[in-house]
Amino acid sequence: MITLTVQTHAQSELRDITQQVQEAVRQGGVDDGLCTLFIPHTTAGVTLNENWDSDVQRDILLTLADIAPVDPRHRHREGNSPAHIKASMVGASALVFVKGGQLQLGRWQGIYLAEFDGPRSRNVWVKVVAG
Amino acid sequence: MITLTVQTHAQSELRDITQQVQEAVRQGGVDDGLCTLFIPHTTAGVTLNENWDSDVQRDILLTLADIAPVDPRHRHREGNSPAHIKASMVGASALVFVKGGQLQLGRWQGIYLAEFDGPRSRNVWVKVVAG
Amino acid sequence: MITLTVQTHAQSELRDITQQVQEAVRQGGVDDGLCTLFIPHTTAGVTLNENWDSDVQRDILLTLADIAPVDPRHRHREGNSPAHIKASMVGASALVFVKGGQLQLGRWQGIYLAEFDGPRSRNVWVKVVAG
Repeated sequence: MITLTVQTHAQSELRDITQQVQEAVRQGGVDDGLCTLFIPHTTAGVTLNENWDSDVQRDILLTLADIAPVDPRHRHREGNSPAHIKASMVGASALVFVKGGQLQLGRWQGIYLAEFDGPRSRNVWVKVVAG
Repeated sequence: MITLTVQTHAQSELRDITQQVQEAVRQGGVDDGLCTLFIPHTTAGVTLNENWDSDVQRDILLTLADIAPVDPRHRHREGNSPAHIKASMVGASALVFVKGGQLQLGRWQGIYLAEFDGPRSRNVWVKVVAG
Repeated sequence: MITLTVQTHAQSELRDITQQVQEAVRQGGVDDGLCTLFIPHTTAGVTLNENWDSDVQRDILLTLADIAPVDPRHRHREGNSPAHIKASMVGASALVFVKGGQLQLGRWQGIYLAEFDGPRSRNVWVKVVAG
């Protein structure tokens, strides 16, 4: 298992970690198999989406803020329930196939750490299973 | 594959199954690899989130009820379309790394069966792949 | 890795691909393990849900359209930000256990390509890892 460290810079941010994950795959030494990612946090997640137009990332965050807004009915004292809700919607893990040591992604796909309660330093755990 | 049985007690509930999953991992006998979880139901899912303040779980369910409310436009006769929608948003599977026979989780993370159409007896399937 | 081709026929559609995935598993030749699916697109995803009453699929799409509507605040020029948002909510990957060469699904579960920006020809990548 390799741990990546990712510094986020906003409360909500989709941060492209594709190159860091590719480097972890190279270090892991498994040429063909399944790259699995795990986020050991409860107010961040991981998602794949378009890496070309950064307005896509902006629009996703905008709509997620509408979907899980600050709500006076929330009781969690830290006040970050929207971040917890978004984390469960986006998910704490992802998988990407690996072939010849390379992440296999669609033409427009990037891997994003989804920060919902930043800015913070986050960890991303990476493991490649042969197969 | 090991089958866990989980009894839920409310229509909507996030039920901590971390200890049951840890026990299944121990039984499975794979010390290092990938623990995979699968929910063989269409109105429940599995998610990871905070295990410290139970108000987090409450707030998540509250907001999911706003996101996928009962809707007179729904046509599914059983009347539980909101549960099906939430199940697809949260997801039917999860993965957690295993090291030295132990689930590797973040400090505040628990594994939750997400019940959206209970109370019921639910199954959770667990498999650990070495790697 | 086996690539499935799936033609969708509407802008938003949940298309049952269970039989195609089962056939890919048969071709892959791994009798026991983990079937993993990956969608190399950013406006489509994969989900498991009820395969009995097609109104479930309709109701899911109806509510997702409410959750991520067309929004004049979106800036992505292609105008399909709702599709990108839904793709991240539903997810780009899925996993299903395989036993004796057969996908292990709950009684009412099917595997669906979730099209959010169709109609298009889509690819679904399938890999079975032994274990």
